Amino acid sequence: MRYKLVISYDGTDFCGWQKQKDHDQGPSLPSVQESVENSLSKILQQNIKVCASGRTDAGVHAINQVIHFEASGKMPKDICWALRPYLPRSIVAKQAFQAPDEFHATLSAVRKTYIYQVWNAKRASALMDRYTYWWRKKLNIDDLNQASQNLVGEHDFASFQSVGTPVKHTVRRIFEAHWVQKNSSLVQFQVSGSGFLKQMVRNIVGTLMEGDFRGDSANRIQWIIAQKDRTKAGVTVEPQGLFLSRVYYPSELDKKCVEI
Amino acid sequence: MRYKLVISYDGTDFCGWQKQKDHDQGPSLPSVQESVENSLSKILQQNIKVCASGRTDAGVHAINQVIHFEASGKMPKDICWALRPYLPRSIVAKQAFQAPDEFHATLSAVRKTYIYQVWNAKRASALMDRYTYWWRKKLNIDDLNQASQNLVGEHDFASFQSVGTPVKHTVRRIFEAHWVQKNSSLVQFQVSGSGFLKQMVRNIVGTLMEGDFRGDSANRIQWIIAQKDRTKAGVTVEPQGLFLSRVYYPSELDKKCVEI
Repeated sequence: MRYKLVISYDGTDFCGWQKQKDHDQGPSLPSVQESVENSLSKILQQNIKVCASGRTDAGVHAINQVIHFEASGKMPKDICWALRPYLPRSIVAKQAFQAPDEFHATLSAVRKTYIYQVWNAKRASALMDRYTYWWRKKLNIDDLNQASQNLVGEHDFASFQSVGTPVKHTVRRIFEAHWVQKNSSLVQFQVSGSGFLKQMVRNIVGTLMEGDFRGDSANRIQWIIAQKDRTKAGVTVEPQGLFLSRVYYPSELDKKCVEI
Repeated sequence: MRYKLVISYDGTDFCGWQKQKDHDQGPSLPSVQESVENSLSKILQQNIKVCASGRTDAGVHAINQVIHFEASGKMPKDICWALRPYLPRSIVAKQAFQAPDEFHATLSAVRKTYIYQVWNAKRASALMDRYTYWWRKKLNIDDLNQASQNLVGEHDFASFQSVGTPVKHTVRRIFEAHWVQKNSSLVQFQVSGSGFLKQMVRNIVGTLMEGDFRGDSANRIQWIIAQKDRTKAGVTVEPQGLFLSRVYYPSELDKKCVEI
């Protein structure tokens, strides 16, 4: 049987979603993947391998990450609750579904939403330090929103792809991209797309915040995209502001998933 | 010269505000106090001792804790900014003032506000785990507010004082106490008083949430107070939901503090 699981995690104390290969660097942080696999393997008393909608980098959080796995035998009643003592408190299983065989967490995904949080204030925040990137200079939300509209649509985002694990096809579709002032100091960038390249959201945020996109210069984003050259875009902002917020699947597939 | 400093901290990785005496228990967490004293001593190149409005227990956070200290010589320009590299990221200096000699962070305080955060949802929250206490059963905010009104006024709160470091006088005045539903899962208890006994807020929250104070039984809080007996009240809830939100001083003293 195939199962779909929605999980949330605080990425601070993990090396990222994926298991790291040994680099002879001594003890390293665990991966979210191995923590989840170990917990599921223990509770289901079989060797479980999980597959996520996508990897998240070290320090990146997930509000709703989606994974699938195969398991035989009977599932415990309320598996999310049952998993609680097996998982670290920084990982929570939120919803479990019996899924059709054709459901694949990575390949079936049609849309993802990320949120990037910025602490935009003169003073840092001790209490938001794990979940925001601190930016002292006052951000102009209107300018950022205007510049961000140039991201919407289908584009080759090679300029926003970090080096390492490059992919052949760098064309992606951005459905929505906007900035929201949540309170006097907290700013959120919310972006939805068909998929994202390596560190693409963090590269976009760095480019938008660092650049001066007032008025006509909003179009400069179009120029940066057209260059297909990473060096033309801005810095990669820190991972701790980034949250994988939601992963979408075709509604006909959602209908075949039965919550357990 | 005397100085007043407003600081914020994430209490998770500290043993509390105060330095712990050696209990021969091996390596222990640092205290907020020693972290702040070390940073100030380094930057001001003299031995600095600080005094806070009150201690916070291990795991308890502060949005605005107030401290005072004596220092000789010239203060660096923008001391809060200058302190940044000397402090751990979990402590932030927010505002600094030159204070009159009669200002005393503990003795001059006339009112304190605490916030206690509850994650009131079926599933735990990986991302709010450090800053909330998880309570599965749906809380009735109206009932909690009605029961809490019995706390307001001057009372002997001996029933809500934890053992250890007992004080002689257990009469305190509560100015305000109310519960607020912040979003679908987050509930806040906000309480202001002239002062608080050891773990008093956490004992009040545990008693109110655990008890069934519907309708007439709201008055049962009066009975618990009248017993002056800790065993008549409820459990002490976990520290990570508690935040020292604000400390108030007489306005004539505030006027004599000059922001630097």
